[in-house]
Amino acid sequence: MRYQGKAKKLYETDDPDILWVEYTDQATAGNGAKKANIEGKARLNNRITTVIFSLLARRGIPSHFIRSISDTEQLNRRLDMFPLEIVMRNRVAGSFAQRYGVAEGTALKQPVLEFFYKSDPLDDPFINRDDILALGLATEQDLDIIAAKTREINGALTGIFRAINVELVDFKIEMGKTGSGIILLGDEITPDTCRLWAIGNNNDSHVTHLDKDIFRRDLGSIIPAYQTILDGLTELEERESQSNS
Amino acid sequence: MRYQGKAKKLYETDDPDILWVEYTDQATAGNGAKKANIEGKARLNNRITTVIFSLLARRGIPSHFIRSISDTEQLNRRLDMFPLEIVMRNRVAGSFAQRYGVAEGTALKQPVLEFFYKSDPLDDPFINRDDILALGLATEQDLDIIAAKTREINGALTGIFRAINVELVDFKIEMGKTGSGIILLGDEITPDTCRLWAIGNNNDSHVTHLDKDIFRRDLGSIIPAYQTILDGLTELEERESQSNS
Repeated sequence: MRYQGKAKKLYETDDPDILWVEYTDQATAGNGAKKANIEGKARLNNRITTVIFSLLARRGIPSHFIRSISDTEQLNRRLDMFPLEIVMRNRVAGSFAQRYGVAEGTALKQPVLEFFYKSDPLDDPFINRDDILALGLATEQDLDIIAAKTREINGALTGIFRAINVELVDFKIEMGKTGSGIILLGDEITPDTCRLWAIGNNNDSHVTHLDKDIFRRDLGSIIPAYQTILDGLTELEERESQSNS
Repeated sequence: MRYQGKAKKLYETDDPDILWVEYTDQATAGNGAKKANIEGKARLNNRITTVIFSLLARRGIPSHFIRSISDTEQLNRRLDMFPLEIVMRNRVAGSFAQRYGVAEGTALKQPVLEFFYKSDPLDDPFINRDDILALGLATEQDLDIIAAKTREINGALTGIFRAINVELVDFKIEMGKTGSGIILLGDEITPDTCRLWAIGNNNDSHVTHLDKDIFRRDLGSIIPAYQTILDGLTELEERESQSNS
C-alpha cells in the first residue's frame, strides 16, 4: 500500500502513473477525533465520485479519474499532490460560521476560496496565499491556476447539483500535477467532501443535510442521504448520455 | 471616553476629526488572557510611536498622527477603522511558527501579509482576502491599497530599524479611512505591535527580544528593551533632522 487516508487506501500499480484506489467504509470527523465504520459508504462514495468526475469531464473539466474497477475501487492517474485542501464556499456553514461568528446559512456576497494546509499533526490549519508562497507549497502561477480551476469546478458542480434539486453549499477538493506539469483535479468529490442541502425546505432550523454533516452532527444514518445523491446523479448522467447520443 | 482599548484610551475632542489618545501602562497578551500594569510603558510607547510616525512621514508615508501633547498623550486624526489587524512578516515567529509547525527564526522566501478579523469574542481569527470581501469588511480596491501601503511601510520600517541595529521580524498595523475616503495608517507602531530582534547575536536559542515577547514569554522587564528602542530611534531622528537642516 502506498498510502492510507481517512476514507481511502491507495496502492501502486505496475504503471507508475496509475494508482489503484480503494474506498473504505470508514467515516471520520474533526480530523479523526470522531470515527466510525459505516457499511455501504465505500460503495456509495466510489460510485458518486465516479459519476461526478464523468459529469465534470463532459463539461470540459478533466480529473485524475480513469475508471471504476469494482463497487469500491477505481483507477486514478497519479498526481504529485499539493499539500492543500482547497475549499470553496457559496453559503456560510461549518468552520466559516464558527470562525467568524456568522450564522450558518447566511448568504455570501460572492463565493469564497480558502486554503488549508494538509497536516494531521497541525490539524490542517487555515492558510493564506502569501503564506503558501512563503512556505514554498505552490508557486504564484500554480495558485492562479488552482483558483481559476476551482471557480470553474464550482460553477459546474453547482449546476450539476441544482439539476437534482440540491444546493452546493461548499466543497473541498485537492489538486496535483501530472508528470508533465499539468494541474489536475484529484482526490474525490462526494458527500464526504461537499455540503449538500436539499433545495426547497431550508430555513435556519430545518436544513435537510445530504452530506457528512449527518455523521458529524449525529443526525442519523448517512446512507439514505448518500443514496439519494447517487440516485439523482445517476439519473442526470443517463439523461445527459441519451440527449447526446 | 469614546473607546478603551487594551493599551490606550480614546477620547473625543471638540473637533470631530480629532481624537485624543492616552497611552496606558497596561500590557496584555493572548487577547487579554495575560494582563499586567507596567510602569513607564505608556510613556515609552507614546514616545516611540511618535518618533516612528515622524520617521515614516519623512519617508512620504502619512499616518493619523498629529502631535504628541504630553508624555503619554497624543492627538490623532479620527479614522473609520477597518476591523482588521494587518500583519506583515519578514521572518517566521509567533503564531505563524505555531500554526504551520515552522521553527521560529526561519527565513521566509518573501515577506507575507496576513489579515486577522478584529473581534475579541472570536479571538481575532485569521482571515483571508476572499473572506474579507464576502463579509463586506473591505472592498477589493481597499485591500489592494492596504496591501500596497503595508509593503511600503514594511520597507520603510525595516530600514529604520536596521539603522539602529534591530531586525524587524514582523509587525501588526491597522488602517482606516478619513472622512474623504483616504486610507491612512492608524493605531500605533511600538514594541507592543512589532517583533524586534537585536541584530548580530541571534541564533535559534539566543534571540535578544526587544519587544512584547519579553512580557508574553516572561523573559524579564520590557522597560529596558523599550528604552533601547526609543533611544535608538530618537538618535536616528536627530541625525536625520540635522542632515536635512
